[in-house]
Amino acid sequence: MKTNPGRFFEDYSLGQVIPHAVPRTVSGGERALYHALYPARHALYSSDEFARASGLKAAPVDDLIAFHTVFGKTVPDISLNAIANLGYAEGRWRKPVWPGDTLRSESEVIGLKQNSNGKSGVVWVRTRGLNQHGETVMDYVRWVMVRKRDADAPAPETVVPDLRTSVPAADLIVPEGLDFTRYDFTLAGEPHGWGDYEVGEKIDHVDGVTVEEAEHMLATRLWQNTAKVHFDATNREDGKRLIYGGHVISLARALSFNGLANAQMIVALNAGAHANPCFSGDTVRAWSEVLDKAETTAPGVGAVRLRLVAVKHGAPDFALKGEDGKYLPDVLLDLDYWALMPM
Amino acid sequence: MKTNPGRFFEDYSLGQVIPHAVPRTVSGGERALYHALYPARHALYSSDEFARASGLKAAPVDDLIAFHTVFGKTVPDISLNAIANLGYAEGRWRKPVWPGDTLRSESEVIGLKQNSNGKSGVVWVRTRGLNQHGETVMDYVRWVMVRKRDADAPAPETVVPDLRTSVPAADLIVPEGLDFTRYDFTLAGEPHGWGDYEVGEKIDHVDGVTVEEAEHMLATRLWQNTAKVHFDATNREDGKRLIYGGHVISLARALSFNGLANAQMIVALNAGAHANPCFSGDTVRAWSEVLDKAETTAPGVGAVRLRLVAVKHGAPDFALKGEDGKYLPDVLLDLDYWALMPM
Amino acid sequence: MKTNPGRFFEDYSLGQVIPHAVPRTVSGGERALYHALYPARHALYSSDEFARASGLKAAPVDDLIAFHTVFGKTVPDISLNAIANLGYAEGRWRKPVWPGDTLRSESEVIGLKQNSNGKSGVVWVRTRGLNQHGETVMDYVRWVMVRKRDADAPAPETVVPDLRTSVPAADLIVPEGLDFTRYDFTLAGEPHGWGDYEVGEKIDHVDGVTVEEAEHMLATRLWQNTAKVHFDATNREDGKRLIYGGHVISLARALSFNGLANAQMIVALNAGAHANPCFSGDTVRAWSEVLDKAETTAPGVGAVRLRLVAVKHGAPDFALKGEDGKYLPDVLLDLDYWALMPM
Repeated sequence: MKTNPGRFFEDYSLGQVIPHAVPRTVSGGERALYHALYPARHALYSSDEFARASGLKAAPVDDLIAFHTVFGKTVPDISLNAIANLGYAEGRWRKPVWPGDTLRSESEVIGLKQNSNGKSGVVWVRTRGLNQHGETVMDYVRWVMVRKRDADAPAPETVVPDLRTSVPAADLIVPEGLDFTRYDFTLAGEPHGWGDYEVGEKIDHVDGVTVEEAEHMLATRLWQNTAKVHFDATNREDGKRLIYGGHVISLARALSFNGLANAQMIVALNAGAHANPCFSGDTVRAWSEVLDKAETTAPGVGAVRLRLVAVKHGAPDFALKGEDGKYLPDVLLDLDYWALMPM
Repeated sequence: MKTNPGRFFEDYSLGQVIPHAVPRTVSGGERALYHALYPARHALYSSDEFARASGLKAAPVDDLIAFHTVFGKTVPDISLNAIANLGYAEGRWRKPVWPGDTLRSESEVIGLKQNSNGKSGVVWVRTRGLNQHGETVMDYVRWVMVRKRDADAPAPETVVPDLRTSVPAADLIVPEGLDFTRYDFTLAGEPHGWGDYEVGEKIDHVDGVTVEEAEHMLATRLWQNTAKVHFDATNREDGKRLIYGGHVISLARALSFNGLANAQMIVALNAGAHANPCFSGDTVRAWSEVLDKAETTAPGVGAVRLRLVAVKHGAPDFALKGEDGKYLPDVLLDLDYWALMPM
Repeated sequence: MKTNPGRFFEDYSLGQVIPHAVPRTVSGGERALYHALYPARHALYSSDEFARASGLKAAPVDDLIAFHTVFGKTVPDISLNAIANLGYAEGRWRKPVWPGDTLRSESEVIGLKQNSNGKSGVVWVRTRGLNQHGETVMDYVRWVMVRKRDADAPAPETVVPDLRTSVPAADLIVPEGLDFTRYDFTLAGEPHGWGDYEVGEKIDHVDGVTVEEAEHMLATRLWQNTAKVHFDATNREDGKRLIYGGHVISLARALSFNGLANAQMIVALNAGAHANPCFSGDTVRAWSEVLDKAETTAPGVGAVRLRLVAVKHGAPDFALKGEDGKYLPDVLLDLDYWALMPM
């Protein structure tokens, strides 16, 4: 059998490092496509000139291009037989990714726990994205529920990693040279800086996008994500293609420009839940909540911790979970991240 | 309220200059996407070699990429609360835009006229697109009807700008170095030069394209145009997404290759009307009429003034308006522009 | 009449060389779009670093980008009035195409045979794709059935070219410098090298993609292919748009990564049949059969001759033709090519 059957729960062992295929060089082409696929307008990624005025050598590719590219490579090894994508933690962007860079990724197994039904288990991996210089551009922990090939295979020792509920502000990595002291709020699109946001504040990002099949498939392929459910309408009984959760992340982040135009760079992913599936025809909207704020040592650069929620259909009412503690059916995404903002 | 509510009629004042967010660097990615989105085949934009043989340093990005990018930036400030896009005039392309250039735009209010109903008014702006050197790459006048926030706000003094019905041939700007004396008609795709077209001649461009939702949304996002009606199927009562008028302009211009393959560069926009809305599923066709011809001082370069009409459904019969003087229901676009052609 | 009516059978003469419009410069934009349009993962085209480790200066653009670009230019001259695309033969890739290269193409008429009905005939052309240095990057023979304009036009002398059923292994051209002796199978995605494949072996590539209208139109336009049937839903009585056969070739080739990840470079096209039409909504799958194997003189580089079959709907059962010798209705493509693999 020459084709990839994916890994099953018993194929993972603690400490194992899995290098993922296929390296990928990104260019202005990926940047242009990102702007075509999402209503992305953050100035630092849209304009080389704006990035230079902020102390960088040029506009990096969007932080989420880096994330999706690194993530996409892990799919054949980590989630081909996954039943559920359970969570993210401790994600940090460590180096900007520039057009011309080549990315690859590898994952280390940091936790294993067989489910009580004996048929599946949870695998925790720390995934690292590396550039052509071998530098880590980002890393994050992700855990998935994976089927066992053989229900009789022995259970591994249970190791549940001790993960932080959020990346401490002191551990955020500000890109070298970043300087927001001469930040042009007019060119960036909104006048609100770090000081204008209060913890607890909620922002309805107003705009909505109705998603089409061609769009999410173009995006998901662009990140070389091969999961069948996104492409093959015969895969589910209802004939629907499940939209890659990362597509919803990028849509929501781009929509959040309207109200958070100055939350320029994503520097940490604290947590994330794909609360409900998204399908073609859904109209996606987003709202954010300011969870925390911190200063950084970089000139003029503050950090803001945000909850980004994507919902479908009607205007968001900032509701997240029901009385049963479960996500409401219209909530698609609940993402917790740190972004850098001008002071 | 952190999100952009858009400007209302009383927010504009004569002489006001509005700098628009977000600057944008274009690359080979935008060029490739333009070819994927439209059946664009004009050789000067398709081939660096052809452009070099015509005296340019490389193929510029399509003139309409420049237009859409500059226009897209104005939407949040000019047309978010617009009821109607009333017209264009005095548009001129002044400098080619090259891959790597960063574009921004700004608009000056040059006219204001409150409607007699007191609920809205017409705003005229002259919009300039600027590159990273501060050079104007194009400018044009556009006027829109905008809602008032408060019907009781006082009416401004009425100033209706005196606009020319077309850019005089003597004012056309030929890109520096352009030379069509060694023009290769075979490589360009058609044998007809400037001398082969007669004023009054009409050309049916034959081909048709049936438009899909994903296509026009990819295009409209690529220009960072944020108008809700193009993306959000819940925005209109009929559940339709209105296709950005500029998408129809680019479609029609690309279709016009078949019969006008040598009308290489657009140098002026004299007038334009989005006669009827275009929706997904419409099959767009185009025809042109030669309105005028002029020589230029550049070697081998002539100018031709063209009416470009986009229609939907059946083959065009060159009909434009009914006996009531109104556009026929199948007419989508009536555009009046100057293009440069080899003599 | 300024528009292109296309050529009819009597417009071709033996030995005639037809230079095709419009030259095209390719860039990282086309590469990114190729990854968005197809689930392409072959490492040599995905990563500049992987290509350098294989002795090339960078990742070339995909061999099929070269093919589609060269082919697209021939459509207005060869197949605008074609009734059927009958076959391919003797295709060879001679030089990699790099981002920044400008491609044009020309076709020489090498065979003519009027059909017995007197209304149409078969035209054989050898098409060459040339880069900006005038070097042939690829060439192939293609034959099509073309309508006559005038049934009374005299029949040309019948000349049927003597075509080889496949390119002999000794005639395969390995790109200069290619060296697979330090090939990284892990990064490439699969452990199977040239020695692991046996003649007669069949591989089900497992994955499927359900095709959308927007996707195949974006792709077909990207190659500047202007055939009406792909874009205009009013062109056929059933309102369907016929998907460009080359779109199915690229889809199937990309799907074949799963099982043939190391069949890196396509170097010859031996034969090809578009067995049945493909339409939006079809779910495309693929299987391959190893037809032949050969060594090459390049270090660590072997050649494998593959049959690539695209099917629609259910899982492939490796069935190709019925008892009547005709392709089964679910077979879309039967392609015979040579690829280069690490030993």
